[in-house]
Amino acid sequence: MPKPRLLVSNDDGVRAPGIAALASELRKVGDVTVVAPDRERSAASHSLTVDVPLRADYLADDVIGVAGTPTDCVLLAIENLLHERPHVVVSGINRGPNVGNDVTYSGTVAAAMEATILGVPAMAVSLGHGEDGEYDYACAARVAGRLTRLILDNGLPGGTLLNVNVPNLPEEEIDGIEVARLGKQVYEDSIVPAVDPRGRTYYWIGGSSSNWKEQHDTDIAALNRGNVALTPIHLDLTDYATMQSVSRWPLEGVAGSTKRKE
Amino acid sequence: MPKPRLLVSNDDGVRAPGIAALASELRKVGDVTVVAPDRERSAASHSLTVDVPLRADYLADDVIGVAGTPTDCVLLAIENLLHERPHVVVSGINRGPNVGNDVTYSGTVAAAMEATILGVPAMAVSLGHGEDGEYDYACAARVAGRLTRLILDNGLPGGTLLNVNVPNLPEEEIDGIEVARLGKQVYEDSIVPAVDPRGRTYYWIGGSSSNWKEQHDTDIAALNRGNVALTPIHLDLTDYATMQSVSRWPLEGVAGSTKRKE
Repeated sequence: MPKPRLLVSNDDGVRAPGIAALASELRKVGDVTVVAPDRERSAASHSLTVDVPLRADYLADDVIGVAGTPTDCVLLAIENLLHERPHVVVSGINRGPNVGNDVTYSGTVAAAMEATILGVPAMAVSLGHGEDGEYDYACAARVAGRLTRLILDNGLPGGTLLNVNVPNLPEEEIDGIEVARLGKQVYEDSIVPAVDPRGRTYYWIGGSSSNWKEQHDTDIAALNRGNVALTPIHLDLTDYATMQSVSRWPLEGVAGSTKRKE
Repeated sequence: MPKPRLLVSNDDGVRAPGIAALASELRKVGDVTVVAPDRERSAASHSLTVDVPLRADYLADDVIGVAGTPTDCVLLAIENLLHERPHVVVSGINRGPNVGNDVTYSGTVAAAMEATILGVPAMAVSLGHGEDGEYDYACAARVAGRLTRLILDNGLPGGTLLNVNVPNLPEEEIDGIEVARLGKQVYEDSIVPAVDPRGRTYYWIGGSSSNWKEQHDTDIAALNRGNVALTPIHLDLTDYATMQSVSRWPLEGVAGSTKRKE
């Protein structure tokens, strides 16, 4: 088997310590190319840059900064910059967890989504908050390396990525790994108003404090128990159950010649 | 029953013709407040603005421009600007369809996602491309008005939104409405390289031409048949089937004290 080709990206920026720890560990697994935003693009979600062009800034032969979003980086890397398609894309290690609803906002997860749409197996890795505001990426990097080997060995179904959250703890304090579903959190103080020196109101998006709807089998609960949370995410957002119930709505008059088709 | 309160947003910007047509039609259904980006924010996905504060620019009593993303607009409106929670949030009418994988990039859909996360029933409405590059929002606006009444009458399950795509045709040429699943498209020419006058390469994200994987029961196929496509989308991205298969991976050595939990 040829040496695995691994593409690494993130949303904290190409110079973030989390991506350095990840790339360093993955170089033990295969040939690593880093293509990541040139600055922090947190909460970028799955956004694409369409109003300005992108440029690739080679910081080293295998480390490229792009003035764009995580999604831009993965698309540009796979469709143009890389000479061969990567075997796996790994995004992270994010500074802070990406659990529950967060995955729809997260640039870290979006980078893995983009790879998945392009047909490349992918994983997003995030590190939980520490009690003291410090982030130690060493354990999460090792976990990412081991899981990358498992993806290379086992593959992933088309359209599915792995979302991984690692507690911000020394490895000996981590109990184990849980395969868990996405949880749901409720944010408090999600808008914080303030007044500028000219008397005009402005608003910060807050929501750092969150009120978990605690359920035992979620990624949130697993992380709070001090375990690694491993959640497969798929990109078919169709709600098949609601397709059935909506089909029973009186749709006849909604559009056109009133023939309802299902 | 009190007059329904309707919040309208989009990603084409508060001055776009699509949102004007939508708001005008929805004023026949209830009290409408428009809170939308002050400029086009297409492909913004579900991104949040966290590095600069937001401001609300009152263009009229019930029309507010925000220098932010569609997600920012809906969050700010529901959590702060509106005096009472809206009964329904309607996003659109987008200039161009949002079908298949597009829903993960779309700011139009993201605005409806944000409302859904905040517990408000929501719908995203997009208009197909016309043959001549012209967009006529009149029919899509009427369809949106009728579907808004159906949402008010029937409700939506928590965590589910409706994604609606209307063909860019006169209403008499539309055959009917189809409840359809999300399709899947493959983009061609997704990266378009070019060279600037100083000899440096830059890259546009392209992909306007797409190579549909045609399947008869998808939103893409319904729209191509000249029908309105109605797709319920849910926000639990957990891939439950893959949770089962990943649980059978040899996860013992991945983290911590090797106790695997499920």
